[in-house]
Amino acid sequence: MRIAVDAMGGDYAPQQAVLGCVLAAKEAQIATVLVGRSEEISRELEQYKDYPSDLITIKDAREVVEFTDHPAMAVRKKRDSSIVVANQLVKNGEAAAVISAGNTGASMTASLFILGRIPGISRPAIAIPLPTVKGVTVLLDAGANAENDPEDLVQFGMMGTIYASAVLGIDRAKVGLLSIGEEETKGNKLVLEAHQLLKASGLDFIGNVEGKDLLMGVADVVVCDGFVGNIILKFAEGMAAALFQKMKEALLKSPVTKLGALAGKPSLKKLKASFDYTEYGGAPLLGVKGVSMISHGRSDAKAFKNAIKAAANAVQQDIIGKIRSSLA
Amino acid sequence: MRIAVDAMGGDYAPQQAVLGCVLAAKEAQIATVLVGRSEEISRELEQYKDYPSDLITIKDAREVVEFTDHPAMAVRKKRDSSIVVANQLVKNGEAAAVISAGNTGASMTASLFILGRIPGISRPAIAIPLPTVKGVTVLLDAGANAENDPEDLVQFGMMGTIYASAVLGIDRAKVGLLSIGEEETKGNKLVLEAHQLLKASGLDFIGNVEGKDLLMGVADVVVCDGFVGNIILKFAEGMAAALFQKMKEALLKSPVTKLGALAGKPSLKKLKASFDYTEYGGAPLLGVKGVSMISHGRSDAKAFKNAIKAAANAVQQDIIGKIRSSLA
Repeated sequence: MRIAVDAMGGDYAPQQAVLGCVLAAKEAQIATVLVGRSEEISRELEQYKDYPSDLITIKDAREVVEFTDHPAMAVRKKRDSSIVVANQLVKNGEAAAVISAGNTGASMTASLFILGRIPGISRPAIAIPLPTVKGVTVLLDAGANAENDPEDLVQFGMMGTIYASAVLGIDRAKVGLLSIGEEETKGNKLVLEAHQLLKASGLDFIGNVEGKDLLMGVADVVVCDGFVGNIILKFAEGMAAALFQKMKEALLKSPVTKLGALAGKPSLKKLKASFDYTEYGGAPLLGVKGVSMISHGRSDAKAFKNAIKAAANAVQQDIIGKIRSSLA
Repeated sequence: MRIAVDAMGGDYAPQQAVLGCVLAAKEAQIATVLVGRSEEISRELEQYKDYPSDLITIKDAREVVEFTDHPAMAVRKKRDSSIVVANQLVKNGEAAAVISAGNTGASMTASLFILGRIPGISRPAIAIPLPTVKGVTVLLDAGANAENDPEDLVQFGMMGTIYASAVLGIDRAKVGLLSIGEEETKGNKLVLEAHQLLKASGLDFIGNVEGKDLLMGVADVVVCDGFVGNIILKFAEGMAAALFQKMKEALLKSPVTKLGALAGKPSLKKLKASFDYTEYGGAPLLGVKGVSMISHGRSDAKAFKNAIKAAANAVQQDIIGKIRSSLA
């Protein structure tokens, strides 16, 4: 098994992608193929000696999709871009999974167009592992779609359950439906209909979950449409940033709190990191015919390593096969 | 001007409502009428001596709407409840505004049914002042509606602008539309249509705003449908609680950080409070024929006092008249 990594994607390309592969080889003996401008990748790779070098290969791709590129257009026009070529490797069976920290829209589009949807899945979804006070809750869809049907939400529940079990080790996940009240009569038309379908789905559906319960860990998987999920995800990111900024200001106000803040910096940093989803190795695009991990643009080597490990895990656990059979 | 306060609403009724009125009388010379079981209210009120007692009157109402009551049912059946009677006082011109920290659904329903909608407003909205790194952003609708039309979102922008100017002193508010990308092509059907209407509305529309920008203070008013707004609001509440719980755990891990945490407690408490919307005196239900403030169930005396001050401010600034004339 070899994992294709888009070496040109992300804010710190290709350095951090390359180092991520080195770490994955060293620490977890996972084989990767770095896709992108081979001379740039080689130059980076040459710095590292102490790793099993046979585990890392390079696949040349000359073009780069920029963050400013229009996703669908870029995938169509830049046929020799690292994102497109990395997905082609999976399509052709030369790699078992693909990881990109590049333009999120383009990564998604490339996997949708090149890998294609699993038959029976109408809308693939991005599944985000959110840190909760108890552990992790998988939220989906976090933005692959701008609009969804009630039926989509049931498929999200099914795919989320499979992912939670295969990759996060959560057996028979409790599935919640994000809404504005716990009663089944609360919500918009989409949610009211989805609630009834989920009740009859055979999933371990625990009913509606409110925004305030999301981080309390009341459910293992929470489903919502991609518009709501994306807003929540980005709001959480922004709120963590705003809170830590305010907290820093508050703690630096006096010498004593400053001392405490300095001493507590490592734990606070760790805490802040737990609200950063790169810690969990990126988010899978579930419902396409292959394992595709969408990583954050800010991914560092550790984030790449975690994404590689999560992807390898998803492949070993055959989540694609499991999604297929649950549709049969 | 006299403000009607539902004395029986909220987790600490009637104590905190009564004390809130005493503080409003003492500190801001605002007259209130406490609505509810007169013997219970009198018993509370008797404790306080040092305030202008002519500013507080009592209006007897025998019934109480419980948190577990069905909102519409309760408003229809409990005709002598404090929520219903307080709204009647405004309807009859005996009070200038109404404040309730009771059953949110019932407070909203009572104001909708009894005060009625301002002609031309199709959907009243709850406007929440969210604390940002720069100041305050008014988010609406925060949950008066489960579903909205594009036209509703334009009215929310207009009402939010008037409220921001009259009560928060923000002149010519920048209005943002909550969506999943800054480009006007990003969003669901509702948002795509609302974007075009907002562009032509004459408001100071700055375009789409993403979840991550909400607390950065990029806009003074942010509009969204009531489903999304309510989920965001409750998620923010839950996230603040989860973060502070985790932060506490992190800081109490070592003696030095513990010392710092103890010394920093007052500023951290203040910070936590800034993410609690009771600090801003509750949220107005905009679009009904009268000033109606919906307060949090956990409101303490300070929250009641702030709600009373905000309500008095809204009355003095004639926000109802201003909403009416902007529709003409």
